[in-house]
Amino acid sequence: MWLHASAHLEFQIPVPTPLLLMLRPRSGGQQWIAREAYVLSPSVPAIEFTDWFGNLCQRLVAPAGYFSIHTSVDVETAEACDAAPGAPFIEVQQLPDETLPYLYPSRYCESDRFSEMAASITAGSLCGYDQCSAIVDYIRNTVQYTPGMGQQIISATEVNQAGHGVCRDMAHLGIACCRALSIPARFVVGYLEGLQPMDLHAWFEAYISNRWYTFDATQSNLQGGRIAIAFGRDAADVAIYTQFGDPIDLLSMDIRVGRMTGPAN
Amino acid sequence: MWLHASAHLEFQIPVPTPLLLMLRPRSGGQQWIAREAYVLSPSVPAIEFTDWFGNLCQRLVAPAGYFSIHTSVDVETAEACDAAPGAPFIEVQQLPDETLPYLYPSRYCESDRFSEMAASITAGSLCGYDQCSAIVDYIRNTVQYTPGMGQQIISATEVNQAGHGVCRDMAHLGIACCRALSIPARFVVGYLEGLQPMDLHAWFEAYISNRWYTFDATQSNLQGGRIAIAFGRDAADVAIYTQFGDPIDLLSMDIRVGRMTGPAN
Amino acid sequence: MWLHASAHLEFQIPVPTPLLLMLRPRSGGQQWIAREAYVLSPSVPAIEFTDWFGNLCQRLVAPAGYFSIHTSVDVETAEACDAAPGAPFIEVQQLPDETLPYLYPSRYCESDRFSEMAASITAGSLCGYDQCSAIVDYIRNTVQYTPGMGQQIISATEVNQAGHGVCRDMAHLGIACCRALSIPARFVVGYLEGLQPMDLHAWFEAYISNRWYTFDATQSNLQGGRIAIAFGRDAADVAIYTQFGDPIDLLSMDIRVGRMTGPAN
Amino acid sequence: MWLHASAHLEFQIPVPTPLLLMLRPRSGGQQWIAREAYVLSPSVPAIEFTDWFGNLCQRLVAPAGYFSIHTSVDVETAEACDAAPGAPFIEVQQLPDETLPYLYPSRYCESDRFSEMAASITAGSLCGYDQCSAIVDYIRNTVQYTPGMGQQIISATEVNQAGHGVCRDMAHLGIACCRALSIPARFVVGYLEGLQPMDLHAWFEAYISNRWYTFDATQSNLQGGRIAIAFGRDAADVAIYTQFGDPIDLLSMDIRVGRMTGPAN
Repeated sequence: MWLHASAHLEFQIPVPTPLLLMLRPRSGGQQWIAREAYVLSPSVPAIEFTDWFGNLCQRLVAPAGYFSIHTSVDVETAEACDAAPGAPFIEVQQLPDETLPYLYPSRYCESDRFSEMAASITAGSLCGYDQCSAIVDYIRNTVQYTPGMGQQIISATEVNQAGHGVCRDMAHLGIACCRALSIPARFVVGYLEGLQPMDLHAWFEAYISNRWYTFDATQSNLQGGRIAIAFGRDAADVAIYTQFGDPIDLLSMDIRVGRMTGPAN
Repeated sequence: MWLHASAHLEFQIPVPTPLLLMLRPRSGGQQWIAREAYVLSPSVPAIEFTDWFGNLCQRLVAPAGYFSIHTSVDVETAEACDAAPGAPFIEVQQLPDETLPYLYPSRYCESDRFSEMAASITAGSLCGYDQCSAIVDYIRNTVQYTPGMGQQIISATEVNQAGHGVCRDMAHLGIACCRALSIPARFVVGYLEGLQPMDLHAWFEAYISNRWYTFDATQSNLQGGRIAIAFGRDAADVAIYTQFGDPIDLLSMDIRVGRMTGPAN
Repeated sequence: MWLHASAHLEFQIPVPTPLLLMLRPRSGGQQWIAREAYVLSPSVPAIEFTDWFGNLCQRLVAPAGYFSIHTSVDVETAEACDAAPGAPFIEVQQLPDETLPYLYPSRYCESDRFSEMAASITAGSLCGYDQCSAIVDYIRNTVQYTPGMGQQIISATEVNQAGHGVCRDMAHLGIACCRALSIPARFVVGYLEGLQPMDLHAWFEAYISNRWYTFDATQSNLQGGRIAIAFGRDAADVAIYTQFGDPIDLLSMDIRVGRMTGPAN
Repeated sequence: MWLHASAHLEFQIPVPTPLLLMLRPRSGGQQWIAREAYVLSPSVPAIEFTDWFGNLCQRLVAPAGYFSIHTSVDVETAEACDAAPGAPFIEVQQLPDETLPYLYPSRYCESDRFSEMAASITAGSLCGYDQCSAIVDYIRNTVQYTPGMGQQIISATEVNQAGHGVCRDMAHLGIACCRALSIPARFVVGYLEGLQPMDLHAWFEAYISNRWYTFDATQSNLQGGRIAIAFGRDAADVAIYTQFGDPIDLLSMDIRVGRMTGPAN
């Protein structure tokens, strides 16, 4: 299916401020970017680099005053996410090197504290995909989903105690449990078609059998229509924008996702 | 200055054929991509990866029949290329690690055979930028520039013997001479505004003082308005498309570059 | 100065267990490895890879029963660590790309919670090296140093509350404060000559001016004689060994560091 | 099997000279380095980095006068190289990204000129391993092997015309033919137990089925006892030492390889 998605951010900036942006989805196995716009107003010099996770990041200094960032993409992505009930766990010694960093605890996923809980949740599940399904079910049943993205970020431990959270929090808890079982898990920020209310979304992927699979604890039926914008160990690695120095004002953030028949030629 | 550039390639393909493409300019210190399109007709799955040189490469299997690739970019790039007469040579022990591969001989730049010639051409020049300028002057004076890109690729040694060549050949000769003097030099394929007749262009960059500088032996006055598409050690690393298996027919390749006032918001 | 250092680890292993090791110091700007041993008993196949941080990591499956790892190095390292009072802070937009990951919060360094504390500690200090010095002084004065490495790892927030900690904990707190000031800071595990009692040691480095500088909150006078074994964002990235699956018994860990006149020829 | 191998190089150096060294074998799937020495006399600062091919490279400035480099390793390596007659060719679209650079022509392997010859040599062979075997047989039957490594490097085209060559030349010819068939092939420099006369050796690897296999056109029966020191596209990427500036005198190079029962504990 073809989607058109856009993010429009407007800022009021008191003093020139370094920004680091992750707003450029990449073409990968799951999605193909046919058209893309990335417009800065006013136009300022920006430099792009690739981070450890493979994200294309942009660095710039936002000038004082009104500043806006407009990005949009035409993307072909899957109508439905692959699922693989029964897909087997990979022994750590067989995992590709590049998946290993996703086994360790990280800022918001204190997997070192979830061994018992993860074992308990997945008792009786086949090792691998079914463990992840059990984790997602558990989260959906015990953590109340409260849509939105803008709040202070809390960690898996804190989400578990709070009993409610946004998509990001539920992803953190899922990741922490997977890693506690030696299943590599990573955090994804992206667009999701049909999200209500429309906003950026977060979910996670787990490495099972021989590839990454999508999991989303905010949904009882895993929906397709996803566009991954950036990957990381958790939200500490993946902010669509990071600012340094004195605070800046985000006046508005407008996210849109719609179906299209295909890219214009 | 803002440029709109596009490449439109049309193929007739006898049997499904793996293609490797380098047609996606990246935002870097010298250019900022504000809009981009990359449309495959018919639409087929494609995967993108980053090669050793930092190029974004796309892999796909082109289906049998008519197949077209249309890419376009809106880019902000410099009106004039930086020049730095007198900029000093960097001792090899001071060069950044990542420039070292550009010191070695490569397929079409047999720098191991150009030590004497390079020393002779640059006799009396200050080490560094002025050596590169002397090399470019020498090439422009001894190799007749014959526009076009489609011919069989020949090496620096062969260009030097032939006494004429396309932009790519002149770049190879320049690179071979620079490397023979321990100056890192790399090959660039890109767009050049105002090129007559319009086509893709090739030039080279040399690492002097603490950055890469642009050199172009096809011009007496170095022009700006460049959009780098891909970098490599020579043309063996940088083909806008590489096909594997039985030959395919390139029906047409249409390259356009024009000025624009700025990206639409 | 030349040092001979060794780590000897003995395990009792109930079932074959995947291990990931970081026990191989690399030759870098600060140290040169002239001799090295890395002996596994019994000898088992091992594979080496380089992680994101540049560490050489070894993967193997330890067999059931008694298993030992013996590593040793002859290293030339600096008698004294470089200090640079007054060295200036680098604006974020000037930082090299590869230092940026060391600005973000991580598992044990919740820098997002230390902005006020770091600002308060460094009030009146010149931005840059002197801020780091003030942070180290603060930690040494408020956190009681309790040698040892084996305990449960606690985070910077927890160290700050506890008021005492091991070298690793003090490094985590220092890193969290530096990052809160937009100074990249990374965690180092290594050998330190003369440490009492002898053990592995941990400290941190901060990126100031145009390089990494060493800081160690366990010492009033920064001592040289250091051999870095591995780098990371915090202890979650850098464990000299990580085991997966059922617990294994570390029977003994013997660390030795001594001066030598130079490597045998 | 366990081998002890050493390389001892002695130089007379007129003026301080930058050197780039590749003399440090790495632990990988095929070999495990248990002990290693790397001694410079006189001792000078050296910095190590990892190149595109994964080789650990050392940079230093050799001082004027007598200068020696002594490296040695205790290595566990395979008694016999794996062979896989019948192992299938991998379609280009299935090849891992990191093997693609080994498909292109390079300085000494002008694979773009070997399509017809490679097709002719391998006519009737199963695609994949058997094609490589046919290439190796052809080379052994048509190119006379003349041991030694010190001569001027010639390219695959030149080797093919000359009809005789050293191990390096035969590897270049093999690589050129493999790449002409879209089989990734890379150049290896290393130690070989039992080589007569003892010297460094060169061979090549081809990517077939799902891994790299060893080929050596200097031997009718592929022998084990190999220690890979460095990998590259051809000899232009892999010199055990590269010097920049005025020539230096290599007074002697002493290579030794012997069996041992195992590493001392």
